Amino acid sequence: VADGPRTLLGIDIGGTKVAAAVATDDGSVRSFGRIPTLVEQGPDATIGRIVELARSVLAEAGVTVDDLAGVGVGCGGPLDPVAGVIHDPPGLAGWHAIPLVARLEAAFGIPVHLDNDANAAALGEHRFGAGRGCTDVLYVTVSTGVGGGAVLGGRLHQGANASAAEIGHTSVDIHGRRCTCGRRGCLEAYASGTAIAARAREGLLSGRSSSLADVPGAPAAIRAEHVAFHAAAGDALAGEVWDEAIEVLGEGIANAINTFDPQVVVLGGGVTNAGEQLIGPVRRIATAGAFHPPGASVEVVLAALGERVGVLGAVAVALAAIDGPAGGAGAVAPHARATVGNDA
Amino acid sequence: VADGPRTLLGIDIGGTKVAAAVATDDGSVRSFGRIPTLVEQGPDATIGRIVELARSVLAEAGVTVDDLAGVGVGCGGPLDPVAGVIHDPPGLAGWHAIPLVARLEAAFGIPVHLDNDANAAALGEHRFGAGRGCTDVLYVTVSTGVGGGAVLGGRLHQGANASAAEIGHTSVDIHGRRCTCGRRGCLEAYASGTAIAARAREGLLSGRSSSLADVPGAPAAIRAEHVAFHAAAGDALAGEVWDEAIEVLGEGIANAINTFDPQVVVLGGGVTNAGEQLIGPVRRIATAGAFHPPGASVEVVLAALGERVGVLGAVAVALAAIDGPAGGAGAVAPHARATVGNDA
Repeated sequence: VADGPRTLLGIDIGGTKVAAAVATDDGSVRSFGRIPTLVEQGPDATIGRIVELARSVLAEAGVTVDDLAGVGVGCGGPLDPVAGVIHDPPGLAGWHAIPLVARLEAAFGIPVHLDNDANAAALGEHRFGAGRGCTDVLYVTVSTGVGGGAVLGGRLHQGANASAAEIGHTSVDIHGRRCTCGRRGCLEAYASGTAIAARAREGLLSGRSSSLADVPGAPAAIRAEHVAFHAAAGDALAGEVWDEAIEVLGEGIANAINTFDPQVVVLGGGVTNAGEQLIGPVRRIATAGAFHPPGASVEVVLAALGERVGVLGAVAVALAAIDGPAGGAGAVAPHARATVGNDA
Repeated sequence: VADGPRTLLGIDIGGTKVAAAVATDDGSVRSFGRIPTLVEQGPDATIGRIVELARSVLAEAGVTVDDLAGVGVGCGGPLDPVAGVIHDPPGLAGWHAIPLVARLEAAFGIPVHLDNDANAAALGEHRFGAGRGCTDVLYVTVSTGVGGGAVLGGRLHQGANASAAEIGHTSVDIHGRRCTCGRRGCLEAYASGTAIAARAREGLLSGRSSSLADVPGAPAAIRAEHVAFHAAAGDALAGEVWDEAIEVLGEGIANAINTFDPQVVVLGGGVTNAGEQLIGPVRRIATAGAFHPPGASVEVVLAALGERVGVLGAVAVALAAIDGPAGGAGAVAPHARATVGNDA
């Protein structure tokens, strides 16, 4: 396969489920499988079943480990991508200093490359999705939490502690709502699925009248998608919670546009399943708030890879590592620099 | 001089004065000169006098244009660093679409490299100053306005419109004070020298009792350094204005730490002449607000180049352009990535 497409294995490890896929370096998925994480069984058991899952998707694609150009893994952080070690992610209780890369390399016999799930998704959307062909891509995940990854000048920007692009913990209201990180006014304190649901519950518990009370199991069972649905249907409480989440998210992305000056901001994660109800107003607030040239030129769009962002992100992690900062078609294109006032 | 140090010419163009220096590529300044900009005479006259100034510092250093490895220019933005054109900077009235690089290249006969003053300062502090030896450096200038430049992975991050690292126009209080850019709560609306002075004046004009009233020519003549001085002396109004400026600046830098995960944040510009009165509390707020690994590892320090940051930044602009993204000792070291929890 010297001149043909390269074949890779991508593994996406979440707190609820693990997915794996065999894909070619153009993003075509040849096989896909998913298992529950069963985190309560501990990391040894889960890693054992991850290896089984990998062998099963390899068999389904009709390839062996020897056919692979690389193996990539995306996992919830914090983790150390260089040492390949997982450090107690919130969703993976008991994964304390787990040398995941060494364990998987021992099982597969070839190098394995690791990054956190937001960085993996950023690389995946950059290489295969909504950021394809761009050199400067900010990916924002709006899910249980709010996270991000930034591809700058064609390369993932990791930062000194592999903690860059944590835009969920940038504040747009230092007198605002307390975040789990201890600060006030972080994007995650308003726009995460957890925060949206919590604020709706707080509203109900404070005695507000709302159609959200009709959600079966309310208030405990209320989730962000209920808030989006009831906001769209005209409920006042749901509308307030949703609109404030959108405002904070849009203003935070405006900050990120003035900081990174990306060509495209890609939004993914469960909360973005609201689609146009989310991306329309976020785009409007973010581009209006940003400085003129970047705000006028940037695209603010939904992720393109959908449910496959995890495994294709993992594949992109492997490709970025294999091709290196100087390799890969389009991976290190020079920064695109339009003229100032390019829309004047 | 094939193996010796390279000699460069650096030119720093501001609204009040223009400075030029001949320096070697280790940052040693061999000659230095400064003239008033006299912006009211128009760009043609100023550019003519810039060329004269350059010839005079070359003569003083005992070199000719033929001895130069490059010429770099830092100038207030907006400007287009690729086309080499100045686009109406606030401090340079009448500099509308001025092809500065072409004009200087015609005068000198060798390539000239241009960037905005904040990016130039970031490159200068990265190569010669407080960010020396680091791969990820955020430079923040706190002056008439608040601006910045980011060296990431050893390279200046320009962004899609050469507008990256505009952290002066990131908001930390979307319900806060209106900024000149139209948003609310931007760093520039609180922490710029202009904003600090304006808020003190507003306080006096609202009838607040304050020792700032004793400043000769108050309230019109009040400047940020008066506010710093009277705050240190215990004046309540000056203290409130200063403390809020510091809080907003520190929180904005906390956001930038979570965004860039830099090894070092370098603060320069006139307002930072307050020294420890500024950097101490800004460091405390910024590192406490940031996520743990980056907040614990990042250094937040004052700029090291002082009044020479402009000309040495311009020299660094030339060196970055000449050496390219893949050249120059230490210019493209891989991202330094410490382990997560490196201070545990």
